[in-house]
Amino acid sequence: MRFISQTSSDGVTEQFFTLGEIPGVLWTPEGARGTRPLILLGHGGGQHKMAPGIVAHARRYAVEGFAVVAIDAPGHGERPRTEEFARIVAEMRAGMAAGENPGALVAGMHGHLAGQAVADWQAVLTAVQLLDHVGTGPVGYCGMSMGCGLGIPLIVAEPRIRAAVLGLLGVHGLAEDAARMTVPVQFLVQWDDQLVPRDQSLALFDALASAEKTLHANPGKHGDVPSFEVDSSLGFLTRHLS
Amino acid sequence: MRFISQTSSDGVTEQFFTLGEIPGVLWTPEGARGTRPLILLGHGGGQHKMAPGIVAHARRYAVEGFAVVAIDAPGHGERPRTEEFARIVAEMRAGMAAGENPGALVAGMHGHLAGQAVADWQAVLTAVQLLDHVGTGPVGYCGMSMGCGLGIPLIVAEPRIRAAVLGLLGVHGLAEDAARMTVPVQFLVQWDDQLVPRDQSLALFDALASAEKTLHANPGKHGDVPSFEVDSSLGFLTRHLS
Repeated sequence: MRFISQTSSDGVTEQFFTLGEIPGVLWTPEGARGTRPLILLGHGGGQHKMAPGIVAHARRYAVEGFAVVAIDAPGHGERPRTEEFARIVAEMRAGMAAGENPGALVAGMHGHLAGQAVADWQAVLTAVQLLDHVGTGPVGYCGMSMGCGLGIPLIVAEPRIRAAVLGLLGVHGLAEDAARMTVPVQFLVQWDDQLVPRDQSLALFDALASAEKTLHANPGKHGDVPSFEVDSSLGFLTRHLS
Repeated sequence: MRFISQTSSDGVTEQFFTLGEIPGVLWTPEGARGTRPLILLGHGGGQHKMAPGIVAHARRYAVEGFAVVAIDAPGHGERPRTEEFARIVAEMRAGMAAGENPGALVAGMHGHLAGQAVADWQAVLTAVQLLDHVGTGPVGYCGMSMGCGLGIPLIVAEPRIRAAVLGLLGVHGLAEDAARMTVPVQFLVQWDDQLVPRDQSLALFDALASAEKTLHANPGKHGDVPSFEVDSSLGFLTRHLS
């Protein structure tokens, strides 16, 4: 793990790093020492590790004492885009424009990335927990949309993750993994989501096997999650990781 | 308004009162002086002002500085049960046993009580806000099941109420009033509710005209709302009434 830069502001230290081919950012409380709970933030499709929603969550969590890490997903942010991934994205867009089932198209794109994304997160989790100011505390995951689609296979593969905030995605391609989920989940639905049909979102919530799962739905489109859900996710993760 | 008893424990003062024919309880922080936000708690069908769920919410809110009031709904708790109401309840139960639409039966029972319940709440709200340790601060309402069915007509009739936590009820008989709701609403759904079909709950949430509305759904039956929703409702009411 190689650190590239470090800055502190408003009580939070932000460290850019690379781990092999994976570019990432680690946020911790300024002056943090010793073990603390860690939250992995998975960004949405077409976004990256410093997308505004990621940074807003990360700083809010870090101020409360958490360590928080985000990485660029395969084919996103600073990472190279393979010809195959470019082709899959182009076909997904063309299919959507042609009125094909967007749930199936998005699931296909996520399925292409999931194997690499899970391996990336497992390597980053191991590396970050070796740092003195992170340590091997409890781990949570937060990801919406593609961050949910790549997060569910990660969580079922990774016993270190003990709670998750997920959502903004339908059940397509995820039913089997959802049926293997056991950790507590807070699941967000946008009631007027133009990308994810409401019944597909509710079906994914329904499919989660977790004994504790709680659904939060709010009016508005895919990108319109209200800001109070950041505090709500903080409360949920604090309850399960502290 | 006549006070019957006053006791204090764990930082909360509990005062039983009657206002005319209406028996009620007022909770305030021990030693409270001056104006504070007020929360009206509406109990469920067959319950009363001191039902365990009511008391748990009341004490949690009062510890945080709120004044909280609960009253017996018409035909409930210490209040006389009219022959007509007894007949309606008996018919409702017989209809449910015979497999009739429970949403329609429950809505009929609520409709019978709503006029009196709204008048009761308006009188109690006026009387309680005249007290020195309550005053005319912002007002919220929290009620599930019958507390939702009587709360929605109250809120659309009563401009002093500025935010509400509702739920555990379907849309039957409430669509018109729901379309007149404008205050922020947090709406609870039990995902496996044996009394309220899921689609009827979601239809009531959908029908609320409030620009800010947020749905929380949790696994379990009608009575199984998880205890963390008490804190969540406190956060919601604090955000809108402070």
